[in-house]
Amino acid sequence: MLKFYYAPKSCALASHIALEEAGAAYETVRLDLAANQQRTPDYTAINPKARVPALETERGVLTETPAILAFIAQTHPAARLAPFDDPFAFAEIQAFNAYLCATLHVAHAHKYRGYRWADEESSFADMRRAAPRAVGACFALIESTFFKGPWVMGGSYTICDPYLFTVSNWLEEDGVDPRLVPRIIDHRSRMAERPAVRRALAAEA
Amino acid sequence: MLKFYYAPKSCALASHIALEEAGAAYETVRLDLAANQQRTPDYTAINPKARVPALETERGVLTETPAILAFIAQTHPAARLAPFDDPFAFAEIQAFNAYLCATLHVAHAHKYRGYRWADEESSFADMRRAAPRAVGACFALIESTFFKGPWVMGGSYTICDPYLFTVSNWLEEDGVDPRLVPRIIDHRSRMAERPAVRRALAAEA
Repeated sequence: MLKFYYAPKSCALASHIALEEAGAAYETVRLDLAANQQRTPDYTAINPKARVPALETERGVLTETPAILAFIAQTHPAARLAPFDDPFAFAEIQAFNAYLCATLHVAHAHKYRGYRWADEESSFADMRRAAPRAVGACFALIESTFFKGPWVMGGSYTICDPYLFTVSNWLEEDGVDPRLVPRIIDHRSRMAERPAVRRALAAEA
Repeated sequence: MLKFYYAPKSCALASHIALEEAGAAYETVRLDLAANQQRTPDYTAINPKARVPALETERGVLTETPAILAFIAQTHPAARLAPFDDPFAFAEIQAFNAYLCATLHVAHAHKYRGYRWADEESSFADMRRAAPRAVGACFALIESTFFKGPWVMGGSYTICDPYLFTVSNWLEEDGVDPRLVPRIIDHRSRMAERPAVRRALAAEA
């Protein structure tokens, strides 16, 4: 049985949805980031990064959303969430998810967690002001270039879709005008109606 | 024939080494980041992110180091650079590479490219001062926890090794004391002696 560690409103939602899409057998452990539960010794013994998500498997713990998403897809092939037999198509999925992980999510994090990369309150305020521009540039590139439609990778729903849905839920809060990214907003609306998405959101509510 | 776009001293070195380890047939295109060649219309038509690396294949262009590394491994199975038939082992590789991409490399980038996330010169200076602490924390976690030895994933050389080698070349410049990470420094020394690494470095020199 998989054990999934998450926090509400975090990027863990992407993996949570993928577990539901895959029909995986799993249990959940909820962490309260505001109460710093990710920094307790019990949790850092599981994930030394003190972050969510983490997925405990019978062979050990996995971290990092792109890795967890691909693991869920590969271990639940019937759900057809990623084409492992097509190296180019799989690499395109990985490239999209790496962009969300290393560029978009990082831009978003500067609004809240400037202390990771700086020490002065004035720098944190500057980062907060710059976040709409930095996050907005990522969404603009996805809207204009990376998003194929109707799903991220085109006709097939993949592990890119729950990840884009997750970060696009932060869009207004990050100060990005949703009218500038109509395809992403349409995707978000269609995602919200999927049963797996509803189940994951209900579990995190 | 693959076409590989890189810049010297960038993270593209990881993919360059992997191409050599795989015995891939490829040609290279060198970009001068100091001259902003990554922002020319010719290059952004290839990679709209205006970054390196990019790998042009017969089916399209791939970006993002973790995606390119896995693609090289999967399309050159004889080199045995990643265990695609073992979902957990493959996910561990992906998690390690995602950490380098989204946490360590991002921490490093704050020393040079604070303008991505802020606007004030005082913030850039603050980020430069904080970089040794932020980058150092990443290397400390790799040294103590993620690095299995003798290679990153243990007994088998994988696509994690050229990536760790690449970022560990930045260590002194980032203000991290190499004496605090002896296993990473030993790995770096052993990597530097591999013929594939020598060939990639010579090509970039």
